[in-house]
Amino acid sequence: MFDHFFRHPFMSRTGIDALRAECVVAALCQVELALAQAEESEGVLTAGTAEALASALRPEAFDLEALADDVGKGGNVAIPFVKQAKAMLPERLRSAFHHGATSQDIVDTALMLLLKPRLEACLTHLAKLRRAQGELMRRHRDTPMIGRTLMQQALPITFGVKVAQWAWGMVQAERRLQRVVDTGLYVQFGGAVGVHSGLDASGMTVMADLARILALAEPMLPWHTDRQPVLELIGAVDAVAVAAEKTALDIALLCQSEIGELSEPAAPGVGGSSSMPHKRNPVACARIRAAARQIHAHHGVILNAGAQPLERGLGEWHAEWAPLLDAVISLEGALESMVPLIEGLEVHEEAMTRNLHVSGGVVMTEPATRLLSRIMDSGRARNLAQRASEKARQERRDYAGVLLEEPDVAGRLDVDTVHSALAIDLYIGSSGVQVDRLLSRPDFQ
Amino acid sequence: MFDHFFRHPFMSRTGIDALRAECVVAALCQVELALAQAEESEGVLTAGTAEALASALRPEAFDLEALADDVGKGGNVAIPFVKQAKAMLPERLRSAFHHGATSQDIVDTALMLLLKPRLEACLTHLAKLRRAQGELMRRHRDTPMIGRTLMQQALPITFGVKVAQWAWGMVQAERRLQRVVDTGLYVQFGGAVGVHSGLDASGMTVMADLARILALAEPMLPWHTDRQPVLELIGAVDAVAVAAEKTALDIALLCQSEIGELSEPAAPGVGGSSSMPHKRNPVACARIRAAARQIHAHHGVILNAGAQPLERGLGEWHAEWAPLLDAVISLEGALESMVPLIEGLEVHEEAMTRNLHVSGGVVMTEPATRLLSRIMDSGRARNLAQRASEKARQERRDYAGVLLEEPDVAGRLDVDTVHSALAIDLYIGSSGVQVDRLLSRPDFQ
Amino acid sequence: MFDHFFRHPFMSRTGIDALRAECVVAALCQVELALAQAEESEGVLTAGTAEALASALRPEAFDLEALADDVGKGGNVAIPFVKQAKAMLPERLRSAFHHGATSQDIVDTALMLLLKPRLEACLTHLAKLRRAQGELMRRHRDTPMIGRTLMQQALPITFGVKVAQWAWGMVQAERRLQRVVDTGLYVQFGGAVGVHSGLDASGMTVMADLARILALAEPMLPWHTDRQPVLELIGAVDAVAVAAEKTALDIALLCQSEIGELSEPAAPGVGGSSSMPHKRNPVACARIRAAARQIHAHHGVILNAGAQPLERGLGEWHAEWAPLLDAVISLEGALESMVPLIEGLEVHEEAMTRNLHVSGGVVMTEPATRLLSRIMDSGRARNLAQRASEKARQERRDYAGVLLEEPDVAGRLDVDTVHSALAIDLYIGSSGVQVDRLLSRPDFQ
Amino acid sequence: MFDHFFRHPFMSRTGIDALRAECVVAALCQVELALAQAEESEGVLTAGTAEALASALRPEAFDLEALADDVGKGGNVAIPFVKQAKAMLPERLRSAFHHGATSQDIVDTALMLLLKPRLEACLTHLAKLRRAQGELMRRHRDTPMIGRTLMQQALPITFGVKVAQWAWGMVQAERRLQRVVDTGLYVQFGGAVGVHSGLDASGMTVMADLARILALAEPMLPWHTDRQPVLELIGAVDAVAVAAEKTALDIALLCQSEIGELSEPAAPGVGGSSSMPHKRNPVACARIRAAARQIHAHHGVILNAGAQPLERGLGEWHAEWAPLLDAVISLEGALESMVPLIEGLEVHEEAMTRNLHVSGGVVMTEPATRLLSRIMDSGRARNLAQRASEKARQERRDYAGVLLEEPDVAGRLDVDTVHSALAIDLYIGSSGVQVDRLLSRPDFQ
Repeated sequence: MFDHFFRHPFMSRTGIDALRAECVVAALCQVELALAQAEESEGVLTAGTAEALASALRPEAFDLEALADDVGKGGNVAIPFVKQAKAMLPERLRSAFHHGATSQDIVDTALMLLLKPRLEACLTHLAKLRRAQGELMRRHRDTPMIGRTLMQQALPITFGVKVAQWAWGMVQAERRLQRVVDTGLYVQFGGAVGVHSGLDASGMTVMADLARILALAEPMLPWHTDRQPVLELIGAVDAVAVAAEKTALDIALLCQSEIGELSEPAAPGVGGSSSMPHKRNPVACARIRAAARQIHAHHGVILNAGAQPLERGLGEWHAEWAPLLDAVISLEGALESMVPLIEGLEVHEEAMTRNLHVSGGVVMTEPATRLLSRIMDSGRARNLAQRASEKARQERRDYAGVLLEEPDVAGRLDVDTVHSALAIDLYIGSSGVQVDRLLSRPDFQ
Repeated sequence: MFDHFFRHPFMSRTGIDALRAECVVAALCQVELALAQAEESEGVLTAGTAEALASALRPEAFDLEALADDVGKGGNVAIPFVKQAKAMLPERLRSAFHHGATSQDIVDTALMLLLKPRLEACLTHLAKLRRAQGELMRRHRDTPMIGRTLMQQALPITFGVKVAQWAWGMVQAERRLQRVVDTGLYVQFGGAVGVHSGLDASGMTVMADLARILALAEPMLPWHTDRQPVLELIGAVDAVAVAAEKTALDIALLCQSEIGELSEPAAPGVGGSSSMPHKRNPVACARIRAAARQIHAHHGVILNAGAQPLERGLGEWHAEWAPLLDAVISLEGALESMVPLIEGLEVHEEAMTRNLHVSGGVVMTEPATRLLSRIMDSGRARNLAQRASEKARQERRDYAGVLLEEPDVAGRLDVDTVHSALAIDLYIGSSGVQVDRLLSRPDFQ
Repeated sequence: MFDHFFRHPFMSRTGIDALRAECVVAALCQVELALAQAEESEGVLTAGTAEALASALRPEAFDLEALADDVGKGGNVAIPFVKQAKAMLPERLRSAFHHGATSQDIVDTALMLLLKPRLEACLTHLAKLRRAQGELMRRHRDTPMIGRTLMQQALPITFGVKVAQWAWGMVQAERRLQRVVDTGLYVQFGGAVGVHSGLDASGMTVMADLARILALAEPMLPWHTDRQPVLELIGAVDAVAVAAEKTALDIALLCQSEIGELSEPAAPGVGGSSSMPHKRNPVACARIRAAARQIHAHHGVILNAGAQPLERGLGEWHAEWAPLLDAVISLEGALESMVPLIEGLEVHEEAMTRNLHVSGGVVMTEPATRLLSRIMDSGRARNLAQRASEKARQERRDYAGVLLEEPDVAGRLDVDTVHSALAIDLYIGSSGVQVDRLLSRPDFQ
Repeated sequence: MFDHFFRHPFMSRTGIDALRAECVVAALCQVELALAQAEESEGVLTAGTAEALASALRPEAFDLEALADDVGKGGNVAIPFVKQAKAMLPERLRSAFHHGATSQDIVDTALMLLLKPRLEACLTHLAKLRRAQGELMRRHRDTPMIGRTLMQQALPITFGVKVAQWAWGMVQAERRLQRVVDTGLYVQFGGAVGVHSGLDASGMTVMADLARILALAEPMLPWHTDRQPVLELIGAVDAVAVAAEKTALDIALLCQSEIGELSEPAAPGVGGSSSMPHKRNPVACARIRAAARQIHAHHGVILNAGAQPLERGLGEWHAEWAPLLDAVISLEGALESMVPLIEGLEVHEEAMTRNLHVSGGVVMTEPATRLLSRIMDSGRARNLAQRASEKARQERRDYAGVLLEEPDVAGRLDVDTVHSALAIDLYIGSSGVQVDRLLSRPDFQ
């Protein structure tokens, strides 16, 4: 399908491989066998059943094509899967297979099993990212650059504090994702209508056992149409996506030819154009931004399908699968792009310095206003600072020099004071303190 | 990948096949060769070049794995495609290949080529659907059923007029889609920055020739970052999806066990449950609703990525591909489910009759109010009609009978008049006229 | 504006009142005065300044019309607000006002101050809701009803466990909201570019003081373009909205005329129709569903605007305000509808019983299959159970009776065993255990 | 409410005024009176009724507060409106009022009446915009500037062709909006369940008359739960929003301090910062982008609520109102910002020239490659052109000069040829032709 060229570029190759049809079938088998084990340990199935099932059920023997053909008929993969599985089993084991379970039990649980290693891979990338961000912050703690608001030059910051912003945004999102992985990937087990029909009270203990066996979290209640766990999961995934998207947006803006403060890491064959040999496109940023935009939409599907009718969705549940899986491996893909991007980011300090000075110090109008307020009222100070800044810009002169010529200023303010107050490289406020604060956190040790 | 079990059930199998990697490569080749032909006819390339290229370029010789590996590096498939293609060509033909084109020219145009037959397939399904709807409307022009507002029994309609509502919704959407297919699938050709750099004025005539050769529409201007054509396309696709979703929602509601007025067509293995042998699930409706929900989100990606920066998107364009393709073949899939659903829809007239009468005529409070208004003021009429309706419901009696016992009514209104005014089966307003109106349109001949 | 008729019905009246223009101005004043206080305590402003500002600044003296007129010019309300405020102050205090702050510091912080009581009001509603849900669960712990999957009758549950599902979904969402209110409503303070330009290291301590004074949380770093806090807030709000929407969907489905298991609480003038006197529309459900749908979209705006460029958004930040405020008071409105809906919900047990038996026990095919599996292989058991269920349905007879007549069953299974295994009212699995589990939590004591 | 400061800045003041509560009531009255007139002309009401109703019904006499209080109870404004209206009427006229209508007939039709002048205002703005765009295109037909792809300098275009791109994007969207205004704003009239209960066949002629009287379009069928007309309307509105957003994004990017090719029109008090006197923020762009983002979400609500159950939505219809109205007056607001932005746009040709040359001609690598291909094979040509471009960039020299020094080039290509082929100002391809093409259309005469 078109995946290779139009969807996969934004996804993790490892993630894609881990979600192959065989892997899905293996996960479905794992859930069913764990269920038999749990039921055996609760006395629902007779001793030895789980082992017998494990011997008889061969994941590699499923007819994947036939499965794919039949998914549509029943509406989900568990229906043809159970049919094929039972056909593979000796008669005496059949009623013990999928015992007391419904399709959604198997599918939801298998999805959690499939997603868990992907989300763990995301967390591994995030840990690497933190290291790379910490490194950048340390190195550029005191590298001044111009801050920009509404994409206009505003006042100086440091590149260190910019990275700190990226990093802290990412850490907040990472903590949400970590919480989901640690305690929010639940086993699903409720039977036909979520009340363990036929199993009675032992249904709840089977659910607990199943969670333990599969190393998933045990839910308070089955969650067939309570999709809060899915909301929390996709919310955390999208939060990381937004953090990545913010970083990519900033990098792309700072890579602009006219700004040139950053470049994506150079690598052979990367960032080229089919028509323009001179181009070095920020393609990692483009991939990350493309992934993030799609993840927001996947999130939207799940939010809009969050209210599911009565005891099972009528399309709402079915609508969750692709967006959920796509979102996770798109995030994994975005992070695969993000880690080397940050690790190898080229920082052009000379361009930062050039851009900082390009306005002739006009950006210092605000500190100039504050300085002038010592010797005149604030309204006049503002006007004078602004007028002088226009003059400095037009005449391409030093702002301090222009100010000191002003009749109302000359002789009333100390020349050194004016020059040092308007030294743009030093006007970086709490930038260093902010970087230090973040670096002192355990996350960045 | 997980596609087989979690995404494909909502997509067209035919559509999926038509978008295989080989098909994408074939489309890319087709665009490049047509471009050479167009440039030759404008004298940009020397005579015979196009034919030479056509002989040398073998679509089946592309290394699809390598292509897939390299898409991410440049950000889109055209970059490695052009590289592989040139390697396949004799040196003298290389500069004539992809001449004056940019990646986006090739990719956007190839996408239109790939989508066109899929959209035509959708139109074919829609034509079949219209026939099936017309048939149902004719057959059930006068089949009374209860209308329901806010999912409460309201007043009678006919099943014919309900189908007319579905059909007319669909026709409006179909016309949007038809317009897009007829005049809105544009060739893309602008070169590196959309102004045919190096080709000058002949760029525009090449663009026109290219459109003619590929049987796509000729745009006014290249549309690299003017995504209005894509908005119109996805808007039409989603409009059809909404029309299908509306029908599926109604059918699912009318299939509810307690209502039972409709059933999905019975077919072996369809609609079964993995745990409950008695179930006959409206799985076609579930599939359609799941597809439609995802299409809305795909639409959302494209809307939010509609404003693309300067001469080429930085992730915005890249974010369009998967949603656009997914949306189209999900729609095709939804329509593949919809056609047999409507063609084979089981209509249970006896259930319609039963539900119509289940309230004992209480739904006729409004006509009763109107009738009573002839002999008393409207406030009192309303109160009396309402009180009598409550009584009829509680005592499970005939509404007309209860009304005629009321002291204020007895003797003041003719018994036959009351019975006929409150004959629920006849109180179907303009239902027949509406059906006739729609059936008289060319769409339904 | 059209608010009164087209937007407000889905919002909290109390919430609307608390967000009047005067209240916004009061919040802006509160932030500025707290800032002066914080700066004074850090020695940035001279002693007595904060008090002098507090005396001079009269929130009621702002010209609200002029403010509204000027918002568009600067892009946000802080700009004209600061201008009006300074004009109100004596010259000597002007430079001390808004000292070191940027518009976004004031606006973001004021928004948190405005939202906090609204979110607390939501939490109060949620606590009431828990009480009402707990009450319903206790009362209906053992009230059997039919469970429905894909809106088809499936197997029995209890109404108690259905309420438990609603309640636990809501509690999960409530905990997210509680966490945001407790620790996630941050003060914003970073100055022009987020690094406390001109304040240097004391910027961070001013930020901490400001948080303490305003009883908001202290952020790690300023969050001008790190919108993770906003994502977490809107995510929690939407999670509650989904939980409410799920409940409203279920209630609306169970209120359907043909099902009739629930009714919204009756109240004069509520749920009427302008044309049909007999109607009792589930308008609370309609209001909640309408609100939730809009909240999802508000969430979507914030997700899509989550990546904000460099040190200040260029429209992205501005796009957050209305969706964020709308979402919160729409949620408050939805909960205002939800509390009385659950407190006064009419539960029609007789309808539940009627619907449970309407299929003649056909829904018991699955337990019948299990029972038959004791005396024959599972494939035959399944077929026999299914065939008998069809017969029972068509002949409107008791399922156990039909089964016992079957040659393969008669005499091989005990009559009492069959009747008790197929007693639909008792086939409620772990329903009671689930309710007990939830009721034993502190949330429901 | 918070509207004044947080929502209205993105909306049209005129639009807001035209949707005041009184105006909504006036529109509701207009619909009811027109309905009476239509019914009178069809003989449904007796002669003189419409006039009598018109005399008795005083729009200014409605108690707006009471209306607002009661909207929630019934779920829409028509219910309390009809109640208040009837109380205002003499007894004998009451049954003639709202005769045969349902709430949705009145509300949907009134919405169309309210929206029509707003959409016409949008079209007026769009006509002005076209004039301003035409003017800019003409003036800058031959003003060269650098084109940028993925925000990197690519190859030259002209500012004229950039404006042409904006303009043609806008015209395509405008045509969709024009079509909606001309033929897509439908009267709604179907009665309680959409089949003119009680009116029978005359319902359809009343519907036609009503459309004629109100100068709205006559629908094929009532569209209570066929929301295709609403989809088409919001789709067109959002298409215009995207076109505006694209322009605003480009302008904001070109206004960046380091690029400086454009400025928003200067105006006193516009674009200032609360903390930085030197700033001139592109606030019109910020407003437009903020509006567009919200309009996309409004669109999303309507798409996701497009499938409405049976004969009336249960929250889906109710969810449409605010997004629809908000979208339209946000668009009107965006266009109010856009017209003066384009009319007064400051174009800094000197900055365009500066940026065009800043790379020392490196952007001409592609034409250089083509030129070199005349004398060597294309692979070598590409390498040489690229190597020389790096050298030119690093040594800040003229690209042609560097190339001509290359041993493989020197003497083999004519010096003038090289200089003229690499003259960046002339390498503007079909820019002029594209501008001319657009200017020759009637839209731009």
